[in-house]
Amino acid sequence: MKIITIGREFGSGGRELGKRLADLTGFDYYDQEILHAIAEKKAHTSGYPESAVAFHAWRTLPLVFHHSFADEHAIHMNELIAQKEVLEEISALERDCIIIGQDADVILKEKKPFRIFVCAELNTRVKRCMERAEGKEKEFSEKEMKRNIKRIDKYRAQTRELVSGSKWGTREGYDLIVNSTDWRMQELAESIKDYMERWFARK
Amino acid sequence: MKIITIGREFGSGGRELGKRLADLTGFDYYDQEILHAIAEKKAHTSGYPESAVAFHAWRTLPLVFHHSFADEHAIHMNELIAQKEVLEEISALERDCIIIGQDADVILKEKKPFRIFVCAELNTRVKRCMERAEGKEKEFSEKEMKRNIKRIDKYRAQTRELVSGSKWGTREGYDLIVNSTDWRMQELAESIKDYMERWFARK
Repeated sequence: MKIITIGREFGSGGRELGKRLADLTGFDYYDQEILHAIAEKKAHTSGYPESAVAFHAWRTLPLVFHHSFADEHAIHMNELIAQKEVLEEISALERDCIIIGQDADVILKEKKPFRIFVCAELNTRVKRCMERAEGKEKEFSEKEMKRNIKRIDKYRAQTRELVSGSKWGTREGYDLIVNSTDWRMQELAESIKDYMERWFARK
Repeated sequence: MKIITIGREFGSGGRELGKRLADLTGFDYYDQEILHAIAEKKAHTSGYPESAVAFHAWRTLPLVFHHSFADEHAIHMNELIAQKEVLEEISALERDCIIIGQDADVILKEKKPFRIFVCAELNTRVKRCMERAEGKEKEFSEKEMKRNIKRIDKYRAQTRELVSGSKWGTREGYDLIVNSTDWRMQELAESIKDYMERWFARK
């Protein structure tokens, strides 16, 4: 089974890259939306009372999580637990897959995923987000968009540190960090596909 | 003209990767040893008195360098200036080339180089360095080697910050960061060659 995990700066195109990579490889594809939907369905069908879920959390999450954990994170924690369980169920399927975000690289590290991180210059990311937001209900100024991007990245970095004790987007944690600035996503996906195939075949 | 710059953690195999990439592409190849030899030859043949060289430095190095500059760096500074001049002469040749280290990515940024950074797990780097040191005059224990590696990386990071004001080995400054752990260098070089060719052809 081959697992590809894609961490990404907000607006860098990491999700689109993952989708295209899934099209090119035929791998299963999971992003935040899909994973949340699965987790929500699980929450509705499992009969566990809140307290049992919380207990389960303290038992299974890494130690660092306990240390930095505080009451105000209660709901957030439940989400993280559900997310972790869903990821483990997915990996138990033993099917090749691509997972966007959700700290899947850390949670599934025993499965030796190919860990990609996608970044891009801030201006490129702002432009990308502005285009995506066009015609939507809420319009953002460039300045607001910049602030949004930084806020979301900060949240991602914090969540990762909370879950894993390791840093987000620094070289120690990934097999490949790509800068998507000026790339067409399809070409970037093709390049990474070739690299990734060699990575899985190495040694 | 295509320029590839390779920054690297000590012991990650960045230099070997660059050599193999040069063999695969036919690009000119420059590493620290070659660049130092050129700079030294220049120093001997140029008639400039020390003071003129120093003045030249203050005029051409980026502002951040002035700020953090102190007297005790005097010799180091002359080296950095010579290095900068040599890199500019090389780029003026307008030939495809690969340059290892020397902050060439920053110094030649106007030439839009493809900026690679190579890292690897610390244990892998220690093993690589131990093998390389075998049979040499001075033998290092694993503990000493670890300390050496960290010291050299720290020096590289500091020099870069001094020259450019930008950080060493963080995602903002590179087009591709590769983790060389468990790769055979020839295969990694082939993978990067393909990626690099697409990068230069993008847009």
